Amino acid sequence: MVIFTLLDYIGAMVFAMSGVLTAAEKRLDLFGAMFIGVVTAIGGGTTRDLLIGVTPVTWLSNWHYLAVIMTGIIVAIIFRQTLNKLRRTMFLFDTIGIGVFTIIGLEKALMIGVHPAVAILMGVTSAVVGGVIRDTLTNEVPLIFKKEIYATACIAGALVYLALRWLGLEAGINQLLTVGVIITIRLLSIRYNWSMPVLTIDSEQK
Amino acid sequence: MVIFTLLDYIGAMVFAMSGVLTAAEKRLDLFGAMFIGVVTAIGGGTTRDLLIGVTPVTWLSNWHYLAVIMTGIIVAIIFRQTLNKLRRTMFLFDTIGIGVFTIIGLEKALMIGVHPAVAILMGVTSAVVGGVIRDTLTNEVPLIFKKEIYATACIAGALVYLALRWLGLEAGINQLLTVGVIITIRLLSIRYNWSMPVLTIDSEQK
Amino acid sequence: MVIFTLLDYIGAMVFAMSGVLTAAEKRLDLFGAMFIGVVTAIGGGTTRDLLIGVTPVTWLSNWHYLAVIMTGIIVAIIFRQTLNKLRRTMFLFDTIGIGVFTIIGLEKALMIGVHPAVAILMGVTSAVVGGVIRDTLTNEVPLIFKKEIYATACIAGALVYLALRWLGLEAGINQLLTVGVIITIRLLSIRYNWSMPVLTIDSEQK
Repeated sequence: MVIFTLLDYIGAMVFAMSGVLTAAEKRLDLFGAMFIGVVTAIGGGTTRDLLIGVTPVTWLSNWHYLAVIMTGIIVAIIFRQTLNKLRRTMFLFDTIGIGVFTIIGLEKALMIGVHPAVAILMGVTSAVVGGVIRDTLTNEVPLIFKKEIYATACIAGALVYLALRWLGLEAGINQLLTVGVIITIRLLSIRYNWSMPVLTIDSEQK
Repeated sequence: MVIFTLLDYIGAMVFAMSGVLTAAEKRLDLFGAMFIGVVTAIGGGTTRDLLIGVTPVTWLSNWHYLAVIMTGIIVAIIFRQTLNKLRRTMFLFDTIGIGVFTIIGLEKALMIGVHPAVAILMGVTSAVVGGVIRDTLTNEVPLIFKKEIYATACIAGALVYLALRWLGLEAGINQLLTVGVIITIRLLSIRYNWSMPVLTIDSEQK
Repeated sequence: MVIFTLLDYIGAMVFAMSGVLTAAEKRLDLFGAMFIGVVTAIGGGTTRDLLIGVTPVTWLSNWHYLAVIMTGIIVAIIFRQTLNKLRRTMFLFDTIGIGVFTIIGLEKALMIGVHPAVAILMGVTSAVVGGVIRDTLTNEVPLIFKKEIYATACIAGALVYLALRWLGLEAGINQLLTVGVIITIRLLSIRYNWSMPVLTIDSEQK
């Protein structure tokens, strides 16, 4: 569906922009910002493609994808001050990204016939690994291990998608609906400050 | 051999548990603990599969593997206080894991016909890369670069396996024997405090 | 061309040596130094091979490559004090490495028929990812995100190569010429202290 492809591009672009902003916070140079921008945008989908054996990976065969990402990177480098103030707004687009990436990953995995539980894991991988690589390269413990309902929203969305798919709902409608579910959960979690419990062990307190 | 498959599952489960304990030490949240648990358990085998070109990677096609890992993760999250006190005991199971993973990696590489030296490297990769990813994601220099006879035990075991294989020993017996050798070397190294020499360079001391 | 293969081996060897020196600065042990040496040397080419779908990756099928790398590692471990003083000289060889790796990556990508812009990215990937992994594993923000004209030299060289190729220049001559261009840009950038602009954002200054 055209609208879904469009959402995919928007997601990749916003992920690339978030990479540039992280790079600027860390005072990296122009090349560093581009590198982080690219891996944030493609990291999740690439990991998924490699694991399920789709090579050359998607963005190698479709250069439009890379063009969209590079556009996002250049815009983010030029307007980084403004974008940094708009992070709350960008966050909405970022949420679109994780929603779309989750469903794409889930579908690609189902297509090669894996167990549904494994397919959900591939959906989550598509959505979160780009951010994990971004944070690891800039020498931080990945944000999603510490804050917010992020991956949880992806998992919930993936479960809804699987259920509706099993009930026979048309794929296009199901995709949009599920992305809506993921966005809603994330927005609610921010609004009401939901978060995952933090694990602790006693030896920490000594 | 059934017993070998069982050991493989035990190894993966203990690796997953060690990932959860590391995540708890770092005060990550529930999702972070699951993520680290999964990549610790599958990181080595996945890297090996990708390098030799086996895709979809093993645990994608066999969901039992992931089920075992998730069981380990849930148990480790619930009983993390107890497990943390039992780390010495768990270490024994961890050693079973590296032994089994080394032999599996070695055999898979030999099967595609690479040079024996390259096959040993694939065995070591299977055994150690999961831990390397775990430590990198939690923002630490990997433990195995700094302490203990860990990879060395794998390499020694791999050499023994290759020698006995060349002498015509039956594979099943060879596997169990070699895992025994790896475990013995590690236990002795802990008992007698063996360690690899640390490299230094003068500029450090300025 | 024989000379180009030779340059490829020299590049891999010097990359491996740089990995060992970084490991020694971080006071890692012997195994850590070997591990870092190997991934620095093969990281870029391996990432490229995985992305474009060439498996088993090159150095698995050609054990000479690994033998050259191990030789470099052993030499670097033994003579680390001397090599550390000769870093300026080694840097020249390192530059040969990035030049050769860029062209090899570019050619391999063109061979599978990707868009030239994507092929340039694959060239840069081959040249820089080994160093990025080395720095990430030793818990540093990758050097090339912060200093010097490094990736920029690769990109410029790749553009020259593509232009001359399009003009019909013989591949062997083009390779040597382009490696020369990359080396020249890097040497000039060091001589005259060229560097990429660093990105900053206001929130940093608060």
